[in-house]
Amino acid sequence: MHAHTERPYLMNTWYVAALSTEVGEEAFFHRTLLDTPVLIYRRQDGTPVALHDRCPHRFAPLHMGWREGDDVVCLYHALRFDCAGQCTHNPHGNRHIPKAAQVASYPLVERDGFLWIWMGDQAADYDAVPDYGELVSGHPNSVGYTYMPVQGNYELIMDNVMDLSHIDHVHGEIITTRGQLTPLIPKVEDTEAFVSARWEWRQTPAMLIFNQFLPEPEGEARHFFHITWTPPANIQLSVGATQDENAALDLDGCTGQYDLHTTTPETVDSTHYFFATRRNHREEDGEYNTQKIQAMHGAFEQEDVPIIEAVHQRMGTADFFELDPVLMSNDVAPVKVRKRLESLIRRERDREDKGGGQAGRVA
Amino acid sequence: MHAHTERPYLMNTWYVAALSTEVGEEAFFHRTLLDTPVLIYRRQDGTPVALHDRCPHRFAPLHMGWREGDDVVCLYHALRFDCAGQCTHNPHGNRHIPKAAQVASYPLVERDGFLWIWMGDQAADYDAVPDYGELVSGHPNSVGYTYMPVQGNYELIMDNVMDLSHIDHVHGEIITTRGQLTPLIPKVEDTEAFVSARWEWRQTPAMLIFNQFLPEPEGEARHFFHITWTPPANIQLSVGATQDENAALDLDGCTGQYDLHTTTPETVDSTHYFFATRRNHREEDGEYNTQKIQAMHGAFEQEDVPIIEAVHQRMGTADFFELDPVLMSNDVAPVKVRKRLESLIRRERDREDKGGGQAGRVA
Amino acid sequence: MHAHTERPYLMNTWYVAALSTEVGEEAFFHRTLLDTPVLIYRRQDGTPVALHDRCPHRFAPLHMGWREGDDVVCLYHALRFDCAGQCTHNPHGNRHIPKAAQVASYPLVERDGFLWIWMGDQAADYDAVPDYGELVSGHPNSVGYTYMPVQGNYELIMDNVMDLSHIDHVHGEIITTRGQLTPLIPKVEDTEAFVSARWEWRQTPAMLIFNQFLPEPEGEARHFFHITWTPPANIQLSVGATQDENAALDLDGCTGQYDLHTTTPETVDSTHYFFATRRNHREEDGEYNTQKIQAMHGAFEQEDVPIIEAVHQRMGTADFFELDPVLMSNDVAPVKVRKRLESLIRRERDREDKGGGQAGRVA
Repeated sequence: MHAHTERPYLMNTWYVAALSTEVGEEAFFHRTLLDTPVLIYRRQDGTPVALHDRCPHRFAPLHMGWREGDDVVCLYHALRFDCAGQCTHNPHGNRHIPKAAQVASYPLVERDGFLWIWMGDQAADYDAVPDYGELVSGHPNSVGYTYMPVQGNYELIMDNVMDLSHIDHVHGEIITTRGQLTPLIPKVEDTEAFVSARWEWRQTPAMLIFNQFLPEPEGEARHFFHITWTPPANIQLSVGATQDENAALDLDGCTGQYDLHTTTPETVDSTHYFFATRRNHREEDGEYNTQKIQAMHGAFEQEDVPIIEAVHQRMGTADFFELDPVLMSNDVAPVKVRKRLESLIRRERDREDKGGGQAGRVA
Repeated sequence: MHAHTERPYLMNTWYVAALSTEVGEEAFFHRTLLDTPVLIYRRQDGTPVALHDRCPHRFAPLHMGWREGDDVVCLYHALRFDCAGQCTHNPHGNRHIPKAAQVASYPLVERDGFLWIWMGDQAADYDAVPDYGELVSGHPNSVGYTYMPVQGNYELIMDNVMDLSHIDHVHGEIITTRGQLTPLIPKVEDTEAFVSARWEWRQTPAMLIFNQFLPEPEGEARHFFHITWTPPANIQLSVGATQDENAALDLDGCTGQYDLHTTTPETVDSTHYFFATRRNHREEDGEYNTQKIQAMHGAFEQEDVPIIEAVHQRMGTADFFELDPVLMSNDVAPVKVRKRLESLIRRERDREDKGGGQAGRVA
Repeated sequence: MHAHTERPYLMNTWYVAALSTEVGEEAFFHRTLLDTPVLIYRRQDGTPVALHDRCPHRFAPLHMGWREGDDVVCLYHALRFDCAGQCTHNPHGNRHIPKAAQVASYPLVERDGFLWIWMGDQAADYDAVPDYGELVSGHPNSVGYTYMPVQGNYELIMDNVMDLSHIDHVHGEIITTRGQLTPLIPKVEDTEAFVSARWEWRQTPAMLIFNQFLPEPEGEARHFFHITWTPPANIQLSVGATQDENAALDLDGCTGQYDLHTTTPETVDSTHYFFATRRNHREEDGEYNTQKIQAMHGAFEQEDVPIIEAVHQRMGTADFFELDPVLMSNDVAPVKVRKRLESLIRRERDREDKGGGQAGRVA
């Protein structure tokens, strides 16, 4: 547990609980999110639901049980609960259902290939479910999703993505900027709603993930990266290249892709890392799509994750800022994200202390 | 360590240290009991003895050493101790035996196939060694014993046995009551000396462990369960079936079996689970006896233990009652057991605080 | 963490970081020493250097990076550091090198086959690097080195060596004294600079590691052991045998060997155990030399280490003296070592409390 934080997560917000594809039609899915074990499954109409994965009677994990229609039956003593967590059947004795026989249920919304969960104690703000419709705006074969468990704190993953200066050092040939990115000072924007960073540069040849789609594969191309963090842990990333000097440096003007990196703490020491990517070229090629998401997954898993996990080990239980990190121009964006998140968590906690109720169910 | 308890065990009482068969004639046996490492072995006359499994000199485990007659010699520096823990030989220097060269020894009684140990600081009450002579009152082939290590708190195992309503949900065909048990409200007795619960019902056919021994295997039969807990952690269970309407619902009147479930904490997070069963039918069939104890062992290990261990994980370090369990009619007996045990532990601690000495050796 | 110690190590002193042979010409070597991860490598001229194995920017382990000449480049963002830990290149933005971009470097001296490291905050005392030149004073084939990781506290290893009375009980035939050592009370010297112990005895035949080199292999021989501890954790041991009644009981007069046992805490619960031995007979036989160091390594690893690790487990987090060990004449030397070390650690801490600066970098 990181020493400096009483509760280290923003609670009243949406996190990704799972990829849509992780939760099948029938089977129970379960995962620990923000220290809390969660059962996820789909009703017969396909709507996903999330319950605290612990029976309120004798605390057996509900995912060990079975389904009856849309209800869940606990393996241990066969108490049955509906999708809202209300006990609907007690087979014991006079079959009276105690008022307290209620499992916590969590608002869950399926959108853009993700299941978004709200685990705070305040009423879920359904207007605030993130909209990453951009991911699903093209041909179905143009978008891929993947998931990685990481043995490290989620903020280290955000640090990694918010400072793209690492890519020439950590990653291999296919996404190298050939040293062009590192000397740049990104343009950082820091508003109430987001923190963004932007890089623009020229390189020859273009990034190898794009150059084959450009008129002159071996020629120079203009490139851009644009990343935008929104709380608690969502980072949109656009990247593209063009050889048209008049084209805009955005996904309309460039051959490029739109990515989402989003993380959900499992505990303070482990993280669920979700990633999705949509490209604006060779959109219909399903085989290329499969190769592409596998390549991205491989790069993260083999190149970023080992570093992130080693950093987590080296930091031990210390807070990042207490360790007096040496900060440079490439750290502006990730540091702003850390500060903003810290401030949001503090504000949430202060509100609770003033009588706003106890946020953050304890598992 | 469970948060609510300073010392979570009743100390001045008898626990099972091992099955008789676990401790051979010559070899050392060792096991951690109530957080304390214990060495157990048999004197040349077969009498079992128990010593703290730690040399008082430099703290080597005595079980790493060797025997000299009935004495134990420490591997590290060859100090020798007798069965009472007294140092009988120091080979070093002037061979003086320091007064403090004494290993704690624990009263140990072999009875009914078990080795019973007393680990409290008060004088052992030999009159209080439990008498489960019922187990060994029949043909030798009518009784079986088994042992299971469980990664969970011992009280969760008592909860499991004290509330038999789980058997139709957790267990397979051979001991199902076909749903007849669950709606019953057991008759619970709660006296100074024990907590018991009793169920009676009819089912068709009888439990499959019994029906083949009844006149009409596919016909209806009357059944009973009778369980009796005595402190700290012993549960006797009788179960039987009969098709004679005039027969008593007990082991004289029924085809049935007498079982003992008893647990000894290894730590607050792990338990030694001992089980014995004697049946009153096909008593001489050794092969059937072997199959029977293996089947019982398999049912516990594959069906109960995974749930108990999962519940232990879900409860974390929290106290059972602090988690506000939803309690129902089937929980009356296990809750009375928990409350009674809590009260006995508190009473023992209060007595010590008033000057009765320090119970519970620290390992 | 042992309960009684705020900081359980003497810091301003030299410890062995590695055997010379463990650190190759090119490759990075890394090891945790006194709770601190350390990177060790050799400059192009062969001189070894030691740095804190953690980049001051985002805390990646430097050993994951690569070399540029004598400098180290961090894998994550390519910051480059020289052998003194000074950042020499920042490829980011305006390439400004922040003043704080500095890795802790540790004084490291290669001597007698070991790399000695100084991890305290006071200036390294180069005059105090231990001199074990005796090890390398003979033919290269007369000396051997080995390393063992031990899952136990380093003081338990010193206890083991300082009290040789264990060897007749723990070790096999080749170094037995045939019971002659155990009844002896060693002559112990305790000065400001060291604690030593000495045993002299006769046995028939001589120790089997020596008897083949004596005139009458099966005859009686006089023997000696002489061990000398110096802080923090170095124990020199001489042992020999002679059949010449006029010969001195030392390595000039006897067939024997000079050993060094030295330990460096990895953590309070684990230790790096280094051992070297030089013999004064059959000095040029390389094959015998290999067999000899393998046999010594085997004896420690298979006979001492399992006991030390078991003792560590049995002691748990308790302090040795708080457990009220029964102490005997054979414990005089190891107890003096423990007390002396405790006093040196306390003195170092007191000095710091009085304003002498904070010793013991926190990793």
